[in-house]
Amino acid sequence: MTEDGKIIVALDAMGGDYAPAEQVKGAVEAVNICDDIVVRLYGDEQKLRSELSKYKYDESGIIIVPSFSVVENCDVPTNAIRQKKDSSMVLGMYALKNGEADAFVSCGNTGAILVGGQTIVGRMRGVDRAGLAFLVPTARTPVLIMDCGANIDCRPEMLVQFAKMGSIYMKYVLGVSDPKVGLVNIGEEETKGNHQVQETFPLLKECGDINFVGSVESRGMIDGEVDVAVCDGFVGNTILKTYEGVAANMLNVVKSALTSTLLSKAGALLIKNNFKKTMKQFSVEEYGGAPMLGLRNFVVKTHGNSKSPEIRNTVLQCRTAVREGLTEKIAESLSRQ
Amino acid sequence: MTEDGKIIVALDAMGGDYAPAEQVKGAVEAVNICDDIVVRLYGDEQKLRSELSKYKYDESGIIIVPSFSVVENCDVPTNAIRQKKDSSMVLGMYALKNGEADAFVSCGNTGAILVGGQTIVGRMRGVDRAGLAFLVPTARTPVLIMDCGANIDCRPEMLVQFAKMGSIYMKYVLGVSDPKVGLVNIGEEETKGNHQVQETFPLLKECGDINFVGSVESRGMIDGEVDVAVCDGFVGNTILKTYEGVAANMLNVVKSALTSTLLSKAGALLIKNNFKKTMKQFSVEEYGGAPMLGLRNFVVKTHGNSKSPEIRNTVLQCRTAVREGLTEKIAESLSRQ
Repeated sequence: MTEDGKIIVALDAMGGDYAPAEQVKGAVEAVNICDDIVVRLYGDEQKLRSELSKYKYDESGIIIVPSFSVVENCDVPTNAIRQKKDSSMVLGMYALKNGEADAFVSCGNTGAILVGGQTIVGRMRGVDRAGLAFLVPTARTPVLIMDCGANIDCRPEMLVQFAKMGSIYMKYVLGVSDPKVGLVNIGEEETKGNHQVQETFPLLKECGDINFVGSVESRGMIDGEVDVAVCDGFVGNTILKTYEGVAANMLNVVKSALTSTLLSKAGALLIKNNFKKTMKQFSVEEYGGAPMLGLRNFVVKTHGNSKSPEIRNTVLQCRTAVREGLTEKIAESLSRQ
Repeated sequence: MTEDGKIIVALDAMGGDYAPAEQVKGAVEAVNICDDIVVRLYGDEQKLRSELSKYKYDESGIIIVPSFSVVENCDVPTNAIRQKKDSSMVLGMYALKNGEADAFVSCGNTGAILVGGQTIVGRMRGVDRAGLAFLVPTARTPVLIMDCGANIDCRPEMLVQFAKMGSIYMKYVLGVSDPKVGLVNIGEEETKGNHQVQETFPLLKECGDINFVGSVESRGMIDGEVDVAVCDGFVGNTILKTYEGVAANMLNVVKSALTSTLLSKAGALLIKNNFKKTMKQFSVEEYGGAPMLGLRNFVVKTHGNSKSPEIRNTVLQCRTAVREGLTEKIAESLSRQ
């Protein structure tokens, strides 16, 4: 934090499909909404200055920190983190490690963020493996799926830690009181599931500090039956990508239904506004990015194709997480295990 | 088959949410379309007669076989198969085993169908485990996901058999030439994936008799990149239920967008027909039911909430499978391994 108590967010301004333009715009929007945030923009100094010149904002809210290379999506994560020491991603992560920032945000190479998170920022004491959590819309309130791809093969103890960390995240950052935690399974009975699930179920049942409601099928999860859905990264990533695929596919089909005949085009004009508003429900950008939970400090991965609203919301999400003492609360919970 | 070469389908007319009305209707529709099919309807004789009296059809195409109990959805599968010997499901499966039918169809208790398939109909020689395969719509042609829940923890050799069986099914029943087979994974690189995937990948690569195209992410699968997606039953079932959940959820949201204001209601009237036609793309009933592959004869599970079109299409699907010699082709392929 700054001396006057402002929260400092390190933003990798060069990672993502629309970097640095949308990153800069999102940062400006965030500091214009909350005057207790300072964003440190890591990136090409000249490009950042040129983007910043387009906006009005309190100049004390944004600091440019020059970087000299970029971690690309095609880079091998471990190599990128080791070799691109002067990149916007690596410099931003070191700022978090060294206390020059309270949170770190990037839309860049997911694998590199995961590697950098583990090796530069470092795991919290007592955490086996940090996990990537995604919030997805449901028929009710959004559900946090954890893990979504950071840990492929998971031991039951890791899933228990994901349950605890996800639960704390939902409680303090999303404001859900007593979040319902479900174990992703292919049936609701306790006897169902693969070896991993059957070994994890009794451990979750014993956890006093979470509200474990039992198994949840992915269908029930999408219906909004739980607030936190626990699974290994293979299953979580598969769910997430199925979700994105079906949603995108259906949206295309609906759009083509709306525009394929003269009559439907006329109808489309009439429903346009209402339709846009409703479909926003399926937009994940409202919730900010995917937090990597279990690190010593708060790291958030946002979509590669993020535009300014998602960047802005992610910066605001960092503010909430830091103000609520998320990392400390996770550390405290895991030290009790 | 009958003496004059007609294909006999045993239909459990008592299983499913709308049994026996929709089962009887679907059977009548099927025999009215193809005169080389005979449907043996297993169920309560009086109820079946009463339903049948509503329709016109060639009476030699439908045979009622009385049964005296029903396997309910709440029944424990193994108990149901063992104890309800006079049920429509068990009698129908014995007919298949004894050669009185060429295929068996049920909308009933999935677990019981799986157990009955393995214990009454029996596994094909050389098959480790029979699997349940589901066809789901994609942005292009439908993809067959196998396994979708019959086998939770799978050895790599089982996945290889699923790949071969699914490939033959798509080729001969759906008419896809040289079906592309993908291994469900969370990245496309050969080095990605959990232990199971990494052990299975090289085995699939070595298979000379399938068109293995490598790993496929669930997103790519929904985009229609492959014809057969291979995974264990835990992952497959999770994908399937995520798919159903997201599709149902979005459909509800779209519907409410269409009807929430006066203006959008007017627009909805204009697009109604076109919209209905387009949304049919997401209806799985077009493709019939989920085949259980690897048994000595052809068993198909259809949705519990199936109506007559799905029953009809499933009976027609059985006809194609039997005419094409699906079971023999699978047996031949697996004997070469």
